[in-house]
Amino acid sequence: MPERAERYFSGSDAQRSAARTLFESVADLPLICPHGHVDPLLFADASYHFGSPAELLLIPDHYVFRMLYSQGVSLEAQGVAVQEGEDGSEVESDHRRIWQTFAENYHLFQGTPTGLWLNDEFRDLFGIDEKLTPANAQAFYDTIAEQLAAPDFTPRRLYEQFNVEALTTTDAATDSLEHHRAIRDSAWPGRIYPTFRPDKVVNGIDQPEWQEQIALLREAAGIDIGDYASYIRALEVRRVFFKEMGATATDHAAESPYTELLSDSEAETVFRRGLNGEASEADARRFTGHMLVEMARMSSEDGLVMQLHPGSVRNHNAVLYRRFGADMGADIPHALDFTRNLKPLLDRFGSHPSLRLILFTLDEATSARELAPLAGHYPILRIGPPWWFYDSINGMRSFFAQVMETAGIYNTVGFNDDTRAFASIPTRHELWRRVACDWLAGLLVEGIIDDEDALQMAHALAYGLAKEAYRL
Amino acid sequence: MPERAERYFSGSDAQRSAARTLFESVADLPLICPHGHVDPLLFADASYHFGSPAELLLIPDHYVFRMLYSQGVSLEAQGVAVQEGEDGSEVESDHRRIWQTFAENYHLFQGTPTGLWLNDEFRDLFGIDEKLTPANAQAFYDTIAEQLAAPDFTPRRLYEQFNVEALTTTDAATDSLEHHRAIRDSAWPGRIYPTFRPDKVVNGIDQPEWQEQIALLREAAGIDIGDYASYIRALEVRRVFFKEMGATATDHAAESPYTELLSDSEAETVFRRGLNGEASEADARRFTGHMLVEMARMSSEDGLVMQLHPGSVRNHNAVLYRRFGADMGADIPHALDFTRNLKPLLDRFGSHPSLRLILFTLDEATSARELAPLAGHYPILRIGPPWWFYDSINGMRSFFAQVMETAGIYNTVGFNDDTRAFASIPTRHELWRRVACDWLAGLLVEGIIDDEDALQMAHALAYGLAKEAYRL
Amino acid sequence: MPERAERYFSGSDAQRSAARTLFESVADLPLICPHGHVDPLLFADASYHFGSPAELLLIPDHYVFRMLYSQGVSLEAQGVAVQEGEDGSEVESDHRRIWQTFAENYHLFQGTPTGLWLNDEFRDLFGIDEKLTPANAQAFYDTIAEQLAAPDFTPRRLYEQFNVEALTTTDAATDSLEHHRAIRDSAWPGRIYPTFRPDKVVNGIDQPEWQEQIALLREAAGIDIGDYASYIRALEVRRVFFKEMGATATDHAAESPYTELLSDSEAETVFRRGLNGEASEADARRFTGHMLVEMARMSSEDGLVMQLHPGSVRNHNAVLYRRFGADMGADIPHALDFTRNLKPLLDRFGSHPSLRLILFTLDEATSARELAPLAGHYPILRIGPPWWFYDSINGMRSFFAQVMETAGIYNTVGFNDDTRAFASIPTRHELWRRVACDWLAGLLVEGIIDDEDALQMAHALAYGLAKEAYRL
Repeated sequence: MPERAERYFSGSDAQRSAARTLFESVADLPLICPHGHVDPLLFADASYHFGSPAELLLIPDHYVFRMLYSQGVSLEAQGVAVQEGEDGSEVESDHRRIWQTFAENYHLFQGTPTGLWLNDEFRDLFGIDEKLTPANAQAFYDTIAEQLAAPDFTPRRLYEQFNVEALTTTDAATDSLEHHRAIRDSAWPGRIYPTFRPDKVVNGIDQPEWQEQIALLREAAGIDIGDYASYIRALEVRRVFFKEMGATATDHAAESPYTELLSDSEAETVFRRGLNGEASEADARRFTGHMLVEMARMSSEDGLVMQLHPGSVRNHNAVLYRRFGADMGADIPHALDFTRNLKPLLDRFGSHPSLRLILFTLDEATSARELAPLAGHYPILRIGPPWWFYDSINGMRSFFAQVMETAGIYNTVGFNDDTRAFASIPTRHELWRRVACDWLAGLLVEGIIDDEDALQMAHALAYGLAKEAYRL
Repeated sequence: MPERAERYFSGSDAQRSAARTLFESVADLPLICPHGHVDPLLFADASYHFGSPAELLLIPDHYVFRMLYSQGVSLEAQGVAVQEGEDGSEVESDHRRIWQTFAENYHLFQGTPTGLWLNDEFRDLFGIDEKLTPANAQAFYDTIAEQLAAPDFTPRRLYEQFNVEALTTTDAATDSLEHHRAIRDSAWPGRIYPTFRPDKVVNGIDQPEWQEQIALLREAAGIDIGDYASYIRALEVRRVFFKEMGATATDHAAESPYTELLSDSEAETVFRRGLNGEASEADARRFTGHMLVEMARMSSEDGLVMQLHPGSVRNHNAVLYRRFGADMGADIPHALDFTRNLKPLLDRFGSHPSLRLILFTLDEATSARELAPLAGHYPILRIGPPWWFYDSINGMRSFFAQVMETAGIYNTVGFNDDTRAFASIPTRHELWRRVACDWLAGLLVEGIIDDEDALQMAHALAYGLAKEAYRL
Repeated sequence: MPERAERYFSGSDAQRSAARTLFESVADLPLICPHGHVDPLLFADASYHFGSPAELLLIPDHYVFRMLYSQGVSLEAQGVAVQEGEDGSEVESDHRRIWQTFAENYHLFQGTPTGLWLNDEFRDLFGIDEKLTPANAQAFYDTIAEQLAAPDFTPRRLYEQFNVEALTTTDAATDSLEHHRAIRDSAWPGRIYPTFRPDKVVNGIDQPEWQEQIALLREAAGIDIGDYASYIRALEVRRVFFKEMGATATDHAAESPYTELLSDSEAETVFRRGLNGEASEADARRFTGHMLVEMARMSSEDGLVMQLHPGSVRNHNAVLYRRFGADMGADIPHALDFTRNLKPLLDRFGSHPSLRLILFTLDEATSARELAPLAGHYPILRIGPPWWFYDSINGMRSFFAQVMETAGIYNTVGFNDDTRAFASIPTRHELWRRVACDWLAGLLVEGIIDDEDALQMAHALAYGLAKEAYRL
């Protein structure tokens, strides 16, 4: 084992030493968290506490429970709640038992990012200097539970302790943003902002859920949505509200990055078929593609930075989806084509002076082949950091190797922690900063950049790019 | 050149030294060979001998002759037999000449896995401490030929000397398994088991060969196959027989991992079109896809571990295929989609408690993108080791880098040597163990795992995972 | 920073030291430049001079201006000329200003191949030992401008100083090759040869430009092109002429590697639809696919080495294309399939004894998956070096890692500089040689090859393979 100060560094002594110097130059910079899934309630309630160790670290984390599930441990045994209407009698409610089951399977995380994050949290956040084992599992539980109960162990105090400068949440287009309002109305100076995510009112117009969402949108926007034009107005009204509440960005998911500009009359026709419950799967695909162009148009006007996260087949496990709902660790990526799919959007807005569009991928083959050439040309494009399965040491190394030569670092946006696990934020940023500095140290010892470049690039990757890209 | 004890290790002195320690901990473990193509006749005949050096090392090995072919040396000059009905007058029959041609082209294998295996066999199996050159080719031939003729140079003795614990062959669903029966009936305690591979009676129902295969199946199973139900019964009968003969697994190849569950009446209709010689290419594709689901169903019932090897366009060189038949080094991979294609099978059996399905790929882009997320979620799935062109140092390194962070090592199955070249088995396993230990040493020196983890993982990758995964 | 002599080397001290020894063995070998875009006029005119620093290094280089464009600097501000008919009043004509803008954005090239090439040119060609900054930009300009004006700073002198052995240009099938004739008629012994690139008379038969090109072809070949047969004759006549002028190769671009052999009557029908302006997009695709097979037929007869560069969506930015024309840094790669698309061509010519076909890719996922298995089998195939976005340190490393184990180095063709920037040729070759030697040093220190192999392979990669592959 290396010195702890040199963990996650690679290569020769010279490279590790250079990495250490670079890391020291950025280790204390504030954290910019421009894309994540932390619940704003944590900050709205000044005395919020996290519950049990299992509630903090296991039950809500699909990175954790998918791995035990893959080896035959049911979600019920891990305390995951079933959907309304399903029989939940087998859901384990004893959190010490859930914790014990987890500890007995902790070897499954050897060499995985989740293993790293948890090890670092145990040590850095909870001050435990041992490795979790079945034998010491209950003692771990005690130590963590005790700290979680401490009066000062609140999200607001941790936000300050973690040195977060700004953190954004992800919120449905129809959300009341009541927690954000509460944060704002309190005296607390933390910068917690919403992000406008309209997926549910944009995607799936062939599904009954979409009509329910349109009803919610109608209510939230205070606009009677009877046709396509009023639907667009409702979205614009909501964007104004999100901006007022501090939002600087939007976020969009889609199975593919397909875009297409429908004519006004086509858009109207397809939209009405959706309202009437008559839309087809093809309609849904075209409407999503059209709305991505339309959202680019709105962003070009209101300045909200647009993010696109395509490429995952959501809820791939049909049985699990019925019983537990969405986000159960069964989102599976597939091959993508950005080059052809984004062309209609780029033909219209690719060189727009005030639009910014950040692209993410779950298909690494597109990074060097498509994203880097696209972002290395189009002024509106930036490349988002390695995401979901790629938020890992290898994912980051491969991102640096595949993206930077063609796009340059200034067409990327630094790091996103993209997490709902608030307590894991410092370790995730530290991992990124360490791997980034290790990459720069490699360039340095190979004579590709000089010291001045390396320090400037380290600062940009750790802090500056995220702040600038998201207009925070 | 490094010390021989440190070959195939990479990185800093610290990493190489850690790799060496780890390798020493697994170097003497028995070899588990759960997927291969060795002819069972080798073990059925207690006094089997291997023939000439060319017969042992060159003529049957498409890894070898494809490379010379790619540089203009005909297969005839390399002694490869033509199909019945083709004029074979140009096929070289002088094995010393074939060997000389090979030696004159030996530089083609510089830096290739075949080059490594051969160099290691020359040294470790035949005790030759020189490099093969055109000048010393005949001396090599003499040395090897002499040893091959020795009374003790039999497959059974080598099996013991190689420290093989179990070895499985690959056998057509219609095979009599006579050699396996002979092995069993002999007093020899070696564990040689068949694997049930029904490709020829499942794939290609639009081809005339399929009908011939059904005739063979009818005979082997002793069942009159007049409809789909009797076809299924015949397959089940054969599976029972394979299990009786020691089989623990099945193996399935397909051009893509497409699956689809046909209704009973659709299956019946398509099957009958096949029997009547009226099936289309689309029928064949759907029938293969359906039978993969059906085979999963059978495995869920009889416990045979299912393996799926998709992704190769077989016999890509039409001219060569006509003249020499299949397996002439012209199987060329193409892009795959597991995420969508496997969904029908997974919807039905993805979480089945007794099914195990091992997936292999020849499209590396699917490893991190699809296989690792799938195996890191679905309980039935495990990921097979790097295969065919990827059974190499880079193939393994890239496998470790792309698969393990998301799937964890316990959703993988250790090593397969997948070879018909029995004499190359020890060097192939040693290469895997060295590269695995080198990877673990990297994790260790970067502070990602600790010594205890590393030793446990080394054992699992070298031995434990293969044994457990294949139920051996 | 490492010693300059060890730049672009990686790994341990032992590896860097081995790389240095290998590099020294090839550093002074002549440069073979078998594929590039240098204007032959440079050599036809014995006293050709390069113009201003901006004209030499910035304005014609889409690698440079695309990067500034991606960060919002217009092409006009970078001095790029608009198409005829467009208003060019905003095009900057002050070359010192263009240079200053470039210097102010020079950080965009940190860690990019363009950055490396430029840094090396500044130092090695112009003797400047500083880093370019906004502050010293005008001094750089002065130093470079002074040297460019020197009487001896001509392409012919640089050709000799660079130790080029042969250099080929890329020329339309309809080109008069007047500059090549002038070079030949002069006493100068430099070997500058044309390459036959018929894209404009082969691709896009559904476009009006194609008919204009056929008119040019008619004129150049002196053949009245009224039907498919006369079109083929005209192409053959032009190939004879190119061979007379020294050509040893052809080059072909296509959006995909699709091939298909049309019957004579189909070819005739489709060709006539093209002549009549009635061809469809599907016609164009099929005709290009057919002509690739036809060009392979011609190459099998006249011995011109065939090159295929597929995979780029050309002129992806529609707005820029209208205003500035082609080659504006907006060619974006997409996913390719060689395995199925090349089969018709390979079925016919895959084992032809005198044909050679060199394949390039912009989809790295095809390198290990398709190109290496194809080239490791078919005698006519060789794999071209990493191209365009992959002509970089990572592109080369990944090429070595992905291609060589399966194809062996002798199924590859060494390096192409592929550049129109004549002054960058030495640094590009040096980078390739350094990265190749670093790769070989890695194999050496890991015990995969021995010293003798390493030296032989270094020579082949640096010089021998290119010379042999292109029949130069």
